[in-house]
Amino acid sequence: MNIVLSRDSQVRIMENTVANAEKYFGQFCALMASYARKTAKLRDKSDLLVKQLIDYANTENPELRSTMKNFAEELAKVQDYRQAEVERLETKVVEPLKRYGVQLKQTQAESNVHKVSVDASRTTQQLKETIDEFQKQKLKDVQKIFSDFVTIEMVFHAKALEVYSSAFQKLDDYDFERDMEDFRAKIQIASGNFDARPVSTTNPSSTLPWSASSQSVRSTLQRQEDSEEDSEENVLQDVSNPEYAQIRR
Amino acid sequence: MNIVLSRDSQVRIMENTVANAEKYFGQFCALMASYARKTAKLRDKSDLLVKQLIDYANTENPELRSTMKNFAEELAKVQDYRQAEVERLETKVVEPLKRYGVQLKQTQAESNVHKVSVDASRTTQQLKETIDEFQKQKLKDVQKIFSDFVTIEMVFHAKALEVYSSAFQKLDDYDFERDMEDFRAKIQIASGNFDARPVSTTNPSSTLPWSASSQSVRSTLQRQEDSEEDSEENVLQDVSNPEYAQIRR
Repeated sequence: MNIVLSRDSQVRIMENTVANAEKYFGQFCALMASYARKTAKLRDKSDLLVKQLIDYANTENPELRSTMKNFAEELAKVQDYRQAEVERLETKVVEPLKRYGVQLKQTQAESNVHKVSVDASRTTQQLKETIDEFQKQKLKDVQKIFSDFVTIEMVFHAKALEVYSSAFQKLDDYDFERDMEDFRAKIQIASGNFDARPVSTTNPSSTLPWSASSQSVRSTLQRQEDSEEDSEENVLQDVSNPEYAQIRR
Repeated sequence: MNIVLSRDSQVRIMENTVANAEKYFGQFCALMASYARKTAKLRDKSDLLVKQLIDYANTENPELRSTMKNFAEELAKVQDYRQAEVERLETKVVEPLKRYGVQLKQTQAESNVHKVSVDASRTTQQLKETIDEFQKQKLKDVQKIFSDFVTIEMVFHAKALEVYSSAFQKLDDYDFERDMEDFRAKIQIASGNFDARPVSTTNPSSTLPWSASSQSVRSTLQRQEDSEEDSEENVLQDVSNPEYAQIRR
């Protein structure tokens, strides 16, 4: 019995296997693209936070200004790692899933060729090989793509943890007493003069601007400019095939 | 000179200090609320991914089904930690910033009282104390709120790293060869029968359903139901004061 092969049932198995893969891998592609987009939005919000922290730092006395500046720099580094995460998700997860979708369509076409072929004994053997090869490739791809996803996430979380630990230290180094002494000294100076200018604490455009010198802050501010062109809707819009976007909200 | 105090300049310092704090803390409140919302959206997308992984697992052979099931469980745990992150951000960052905004309004009102008071010598002393107290509180709040933010993020990243490391292991444990043997055996059985039913590999509603037994997967699926009520727009909508939402996009 095992030697007698039904070409129709083979074709049906092939079609079902491919259709199932197409359904789920299409959903995974859309979800992973969406996951990358949401991550990019979180990065955008954090970039804004970095910018506001720098603006705020410039309105404060040296002690808090320096603390906020250092904190913003660390926060900017986290966003650089988040940016790397987004790029890796696109390259190592979304793109392979997209390519896999294209490959699935070719396999479907191939199985149609087998269906109309006249040489039954030859096509059943070919079909068996095609199904076997297809399944092998699929299983390897599943493991590879999700392992890559996990690796990308692990690298990001490890780096974020490292940078936030440093950020916590920066905030912890803040010398509250020294800041209050500075403030009280300024209040005294100001209150000694009837035409006192507002103290720098309260002046949003401080005369002691903090220069955004670090690479992270530069790249953060660069992304801010870029993001004026990249609206929330078109970020990664070309990443997912329309056929794969059925469950995107 | 230091003893002679100008009530007007004192009031001006007070007003500027409070207005500056109101401006920046209002922006921080809106940004942090938005950051929490974006994080919640990332969690929602990941919850969908968990659900799709379980659905997909149920269409596969035992070896891959078990691997995908285990992987989905780990991914669900990450989302539980992300959920905790969102809740902590609301409680320890957004809410204190919101309360701080209310307090700022009270301080403004207080400074107006000083402005119209007739007892100049008494009010200047009171104003000095008010400014001092205000600044002290502000500096402590800044350090506390951002330290809490960093701590929340650190806890999340540390937990995520731990769970993803375990998720990587689950994917690594996958026995590809055994899965192929299973598949080839099914193909043989199917091809020996002209009226072969589709193999379970290709049947989306498998007869071997995987039960979503873990707490994480349960909470993930629960959130899925919840999120049908919580549209993207109304999540956390009551968290930020309208006055604080000026920069929200």
